Amino acid sequence: MDSKTLRVVQFGLGPIGQASAKLAVERSQMKLVGAIDIDPEKVGKDVGEVVGLGTKTGISVSADAKKTLAEAKPDIVLHTTRSFVPDVFPQFEAILSAGVNVVSSTEELLFPQLKNPDLARQLDLLARSNNATILGTGVNPGYVLDTLVLMATGVCTDVTRIRAERVVDASERRLPLQKKVGAGMTPEEFKALVAAGKLGHIGMKESVALIAYGLNWTLSDIQEEIEPVLADETATTPFLTVPKGMVAGIHNVGRGFVDGEERITLDLKMYVGAKNPHDGVHLDSVPPIHLEITNGTMGDIATVAMLHNMAPLVVQADPGLKTMADMPVPRVFL
Amino acid sequence: MDSKTLRVVQFGLGPIGQASAKLAVERSQMKLVGAIDIDPEKVGKDVGEVVGLGTKTGISVSADAKKTLAEAKPDIVLHTTRSFVPDVFPQFEAILSAGVNVVSSTEELLFPQLKNPDLARQLDLLARSNNATILGTGVNPGYVLDTLVLMATGVCTDVTRIRAERVVDASERRLPLQKKVGAGMTPEEFKALVAAGKLGHIGMKESVALIAYGLNWTLSDIQEEIEPVLADETATTPFLTVPKGMVAGIHNVGRGFVDGEERITLDLKMYVGAKNPHDGVHLDSVPPIHLEITNGTMGDIATVAMLHNMAPLVVQADPGLKTMADMPVPRVFL
Repeated sequence: MDSKTLRVVQFGLGPIGQASAKLAVERSQMKLVGAIDIDPEKVGKDVGEVVGLGTKTGISVSADAKKTLAEAKPDIVLHTTRSFVPDVFPQFEAILSAGVNVVSSTEELLFPQLKNPDLARQLDLLARSNNATILGTGVNPGYVLDTLVLMATGVCTDVTRIRAERVVDASERRLPLQKKVGAGMTPEEFKALVAAGKLGHIGMKESVALIAYGLNWTLSDIQEEIEPVLADETATTPFLTVPKGMVAGIHNVGRGFVDGEERITLDLKMYVGAKNPHDGVHLDSVPPIHLEITNGTMGDIATVAMLHNMAPLVVQADPGLKTMADMPVPRVFL
Repeated sequence: MDSKTLRVVQFGLGPIGQASAKLAVERSQMKLVGAIDIDPEKVGKDVGEVVGLGTKTGISVSADAKKTLAEAKPDIVLHTTRSFVPDVFPQFEAILSAGVNVVSSTEELLFPQLKNPDLARQLDLLARSNNATILGTGVNPGYVLDTLVLMATGVCTDVTRIRAERVVDASERRLPLQKKVGAGMTPEEFKALVAAGKLGHIGMKESVALIAYGLNWTLSDIQEEIEPVLADETATTPFLTVPKGMVAGIHNVGRGFVDGEERITLDLKMYVGAKNPHDGVHLDSVPPIHLEITNGTMGDIATVAMLHNMAPLVVQADPGLKTMADMPVPRVFL
């Protein structure tokens, strides 16, 4: 691995983007050369102020992506704005057209071929024709329930059934995450928001599809279920209280079927007061594999880590739209 | 991942090579098109007979590597002969000169830059000039104590200290493995053989070096210790008995130092009667990571798996000498 300082632009300064920008300033092997956000509260301010660094960086937040990219000439954009590919396509278009690589936490970008094959093809063409690379990653989707699953199968001569699970105690996460999993709602409110597509983990089907792509499995169907986890006792976080019987969080299951048979099951529980938080991969395989990450992989910081750690690998990669299954083994960028 | 049938030649028909050849015949996505070994007991026989398939394959074992490669025109060679790069260099030279890719269990090939930098450069040049790719892999070295360690760091923003461990109950392994770890010897016999370089796990320093390469750490030193594990009670395997006080197996530790400070510690215990066999990666890191594979990764079959699973990725890779840190995430080849 060549050692060089990466010039990065942070695109999106929500909670994850702020943590990413802060880390980019602090790391010796990265140089933050620009920051983009459309929030009027942030535009024009020094990014050091926006992300709570306590010092000025000399970089002002700009709402003009094209201008920032043209002036800053980054090696790569760290992109953390929205979850759905159609919403962020114009942003990717601006980045790739400037010939700049991008690594993004947009959940659907993990495997955009699933829900937006036309946009995926356009992104691939745009990237290739501008000698740039684009990758979607994160901790989930991006690592625990997909890339780590692929890695676990690497020592097997046969795999017939994949089960992976992630249990997160949402008590320890930020308020937006607690709200995102429905903590404190009534079961009815939860179900109404799920039906409206406004609640829940995004990227579950993409994780299933990425595993299948990596293993060369042709899926006959991908299914997803979202149910509330109800509090069996009153639970309190620094931000809110969940009375007994109310929604403590979410139980999200993704299933991948080959010829009608369920071969992939991804099980995510994120709720306030979750016992035994952990990540696990369990394979019916030769040899059998049972892999566990004790206490699980801490969410937000790990997503920032994946963006930063994949950045130098994306810069070195061939042009085009890549998936985590196409990329070298993730490793910390030090 | 493109789906196609890989044409493979098995080079080396020892225990691992036989298992590899057998699996290559059994897999629908591989076609065994040649087999090479110098053992007069095997040469000229049908490979199906040699590997105990119970059926003929129409492929005769040949001692002539160049002729076999020229006639069989494989996509890749699965290479399982010896442990040290200088011993197998002429074999790699023959394979690469024929323009054929190779994935090998030669332990030192995991990171040949460490002990044989000149030969590593020659292999890289040979591979590039013949549009071929060469990779060393296996379960250990190749996965548990190196690639999996890199993978574990992937969700971290900082890693200061790496500890990985592998505990193998040698009772369940084949006799050559039990002998390789010294089971049944006196402590004096063990130490004499270690001093003569004739005993012990090979590839420990290469695992340390591969991690450092992947993380961009410059090591000031790599150290290795090999000690006997003595039986605290009499242990019996299908092949031998270890009386109390005699050698039950090996304890092998690899250490990597950065600026004189130990940052990487790899701890391998392989002995008859080992309790709680497992693989583990423990990082002093942000966030902290504790990953474990319950019961560990079964050795021989996993090495065969790694050779087969990396094969299609090696075929697709750019030409040259590659390491596991340069390759896509391993996944089962189905």
